[in-house]
Amino acid sequence: MEPVALPWGRPREERADAARNRAHLIDVARRMVAELGADKVTMDGLAEQAGLGKGTVFRRFGTRAGIFHALLDEEERHFQQRVLSGPPPLGPGAPPVERLIAFGRARLEFLVEHMVLARASLDPGQPVPVSESPSLFHVQMLLNEACPAEAASGALAVQLVAALEGPILLYLRGEGTPEVDGLIASWQVLAERVCGVSSAR
Amino acid sequence: MEPVALPWGRPREERADAARNRAHLIDVARRMVAELGADKVTMDGLAEQAGLGKGTVFRRFGTRAGIFHALLDEEERHFQQRVLSGPPPLGPGAPPVERLIAFGRARLEFLVEHMVLARASLDPGQPVPVSESPSLFHVQMLLNEACPAEAASGALAVQLVAALEGPILLYLRGEGTPEVDGLIASWQVLAERVCGVSSAR
Repeated sequence: MEPVALPWGRPREERADAARNRAHLIDVARRMVAELGADKVTMDGLAEQAGLGKGTVFRRFGTRAGIFHALLDEEERHFQQRVLSGPPPLGPGAPPVERLIAFGRARLEFLVEHMVLARASLDPGQPVPVSESPSLFHVQMLLNEACPAEAASGALAVQLVAALEGPILLYLRGEGTPEVDGLIASWQVLAERVCGVSSAR
Repeated sequence: MEPVALPWGRPREERADAARNRAHLIDVARRMVAELGADKVTMDGLAEQAGLGKGTVFRRFGTRAGIFHALLDEEERHFQQRVLSGPPPLGPGAPPVERLIAFGRARLEFLVEHMVLARASLDPGQPVPVSESPSLFHVQMLLNEACPAEAASGALAVQLVAALEGPILLYLRGEGTPEVDGLIASWQVLAERVCGVSSAR
């Protein structure tokens, strides 16, 4: 999402401006989400509130969903940090199925906590490039360890990530929707059984 | 999606008009999708091409996604017919896990065949009311038969439907995305293992 550097270069001052603009836009967007709700945040409205040109907002975020993607990004980096180097079983050091279960629980809690941003960061009609999903990378890695034969095609990891994230991102929580505790419990069933841990009947 | 009847009633002629308008709008929309692509079909464009008022299109479909939902609806009814009364194992008469595997294969093939419409029928920022998913109803029913204890909370059915439909609806097919054959094969792994069929290692 970083803008491509113009071939004739730009003065240093402009790059510092760009960084300031970005930080300013993120602050303003965060305030707008808090005060107005995510569905009221538009490219035009953000430009106006930030006192910047529409072109600047467009170059920075690309699409309306890009605004929310940027807002979520900082939270995502904290989350990834816990996965990559936090204490086990979410972090390294536990057996792969235990890590898979812990990852599912943590990811569901993360998505519920940031549900409005996470949903708004999906571009309508623009499905998520599956290769960009950090969850997919991690689930594939754990499946490679836990059950390499089944994991080899890559399809199982995609389906498990969809099972994990789809109920929050794709479906409406409301009447008839399971609570997050139910999703955490059945994620454990999925993770254990798919990898052949003998909790099967 | 049917409009509520006005309390003072409407003359018979108007209802016949409404039915004609609906059929005409669907024909025009189908032609626009074929000629221009789904992403070029808008409420305004459809009204103009159909020679009808914007209000008529809005009352009929509610949102832009509603247009695609209506286009998909006829195909969905054929699909449901095969599930409800077609030959086993997709139709009734096979053991529940076999039906679950057959359902996943048929549903993946259906979604791939109608991917453009299926994706366009999702309202941006408006997650699917999970209670309206015919897939969920069917998967829950089969899980109730195959593994009632695990199915009781409803969360497992939601996750399995997400595992089935999410890779097509939510993620971009392209480089790094598994082919539908891979998804069908790993759906079978999921269905068999979750319900304790002993193909586990």
